[in-house]
Amino acid sequence: MSPFTRQRSQSIAALGEIKLINEIQRWLGTATPKAPAGIGDDCAILAGSPKDQLVTVDPVIYREHFDDTIPARGIGAKLFNRNLSDIAAMGGRPRAAVIALAMSKEVKIEWLRDFYRSLANIARRHRVPIVGGDIAHQPTGFTATMTLIGESSHQRTLTRQGAKAGDWIFTTGKLGGSRLNWHWKFTPRLAEGQWLASRPEVRAMMDISDGLAKDLISLQPKGTRAALSEQMIPVSRSADQMSKESNKPALFHALTDGEDYELLFVVNGRTKPEMLQQAWSRHFKLPLACIGRFLKAKAVSPFDDELDLSKYHGFEHLR
Amino acid sequence: MSPFTRQRSQSIAALGEIKLINEIQRWLGTATPKAPAGIGDDCAILAGSPKDQLVTVDPVIYREHFDDTIPARGIGAKLFNRNLSDIAAMGGRPRAAVIALAMSKEVKIEWLRDFYRSLANIARRHRVPIVGGDIAHQPTGFTATMTLIGESSHQRTLTRQGAKAGDWIFTTGKLGGSRLNWHWKFTPRLAEGQWLASRPEVRAMMDISDGLAKDLISLQPKGTRAALSEQMIPVSRSADQMSKESNKPALFHALTDGEDYELLFVVNGRTKPEMLQQAWSRHFKLPLACIGRFLKAKAVSPFDDELDLSKYHGFEHLR
Repeated sequence: MSPFTRQRSQSIAALGEIKLINEIQRWLGTATPKAPAGIGDDCAILAGSPKDQLVTVDPVIYREHFDDTIPARGIGAKLFNRNLSDIAAMGGRPRAAVIALAMSKEVKIEWLRDFYRSLANIARRHRVPIVGGDIAHQPTGFTATMTLIGESSHQRTLTRQGAKAGDWIFTTGKLGGSRLNWHWKFTPRLAEGQWLASRPEVRAMMDISDGLAKDLISLQPKGTRAALSEQMIPVSRSADQMSKESNKPALFHALTDGEDYELLFVVNGRTKPEMLQQAWSRHFKLPLACIGRFLKAKAVSPFDDELDLSKYHGFEHLR
Repeated sequence: MSPFTRQRSQSIAALGEIKLINEIQRWLGTATPKAPAGIGDDCAILAGSPKDQLVTVDPVIYREHFDDTIPARGIGAKLFNRNLSDIAAMGGRPRAAVIALAMSKEVKIEWLRDFYRSLANIARRHRVPIVGGDIAHQPTGFTATMTLIGESSHQRTLTRQGAKAGDWIFTTGKLGGSRLNWHWKFTPRLAEGQWLASRPEVRAMMDISDGLAKDLISLQPKGTRAALSEQMIPVSRSADQMSKESNKPALFHALTDGEDYELLFVVNGRTKPEMLQQAWSRHFKLPLACIGRFLKAKAVSPFDDELDLSKYHGFEHLR
């Protein structure tokens, strides 16, 4: 039987990413544990003592994640940093990486050298050895898949679960317009993630990969709404620039563009946001913004500029 | 810059697999440790106490590792079992798997369901949970990459290093003709690998993936030759069958066909081969053959039917 069909209704295109992942979980049944140990968080967690082990896997694929305009060293950096960002998102420390390449025989030696040299640079910078891998031929294209193994940096691992009604919503950095450059030039927020995991008031965390508006849903507790203040959203210069091309507001780009690779996290509602920001600024120059709260669905808004998030749809893969 | 070139001399096709891996190790430099901790064995080893951790990664790729004649459940089984075989090759125990899919939007839902259900069956059989993964779009084809994490089952991990002049060479099972069926129907030799790791006379081990004649080179100590006795090579029925089609001897298929996924290992030369075989047969029904010895390069042959291995070239990827 061919794996492929031209009939859209019978293909995975008919499902879209979210339904497809639900189906996969159903097909796997008891072979996969529930999140966060299994599918559905930035990393899988292998429970350990005294430290949990973290595992994440992400690819870079020609014509999906990069094209001819980006240098080979940028592709290596993107591959490694995407995976580091997943470890950062759980407050972990990276330990070792393996890389599987599936590629056409027509890949340039020189291009591949630059790709590997950039991986080596990042491996040395973060002291994460590349301990193995696999090289295989595929009929066309270039698909590199990294699996990164890490461990919790403190006695706990921050997952996407744990937010409660009344909790504050924070994000690091500035958002939007990643497509211009940031998507292969970003810095994974490892030190920041580890520091946040050491703070007991931080309850849940993830990195922003599909756009704030979409990703926030993963943190949202049942029976609540995410009340975000428009003026508090940190809009990047790239989002402004994108806005000129797209004729959409820069805010739209900040809320829906993917690949920000910033940390999105939730803080106990009894904490004063300024206290966390003061402590943060003693360690980091990176901007930190409190952008809103999770509120009971019908609670009165504390913001006179609360965003209607239903207008903003984030990126969905495989649609 | 495009990753691809039509000029063969500048492409990875000009290097072949062995040179390409050497180049990658050079490009990575200090970012990759030496084998067995790094590239060059069946699994990477992350040293741990009391147990080492093992990591392996292997893909299945449409039109490389399978075609339309093989059912989807066979592809899932092949993907999982290839990785299990790498853990078996070091005497380890599998612990958890992650899967990254890169695929066209035209993949059939039904096909993918059968693929995942077969993964789930194997996961349950071996009690290896599938803890996470990634799904990405690629312009054409289907590439599934599994990373499998394991641990040493005893206080030591068997690597490819450790053979000495005078040591016996053993293989499990029967060899050759895998392409007919075995390549997606094979059984990874997990229990056998763990048992062999418990035997102090076993010095080095690997699984046969590229054909006995080629793989044996990885175990061969410097300054020795592999003296194999022709009549001792366990030739499979499939090798006989292939022989009828190819007009080459069945022995040729047993020595050079890839994907046997049997264990090839080396035993202290002071051991009596019959003693190990007797102990083996109390645990396993699978055939075990002593096929030869590593001898000093110019030593007189103990066999009157010693094979001239220079006639047999194993499979090389990317040629």
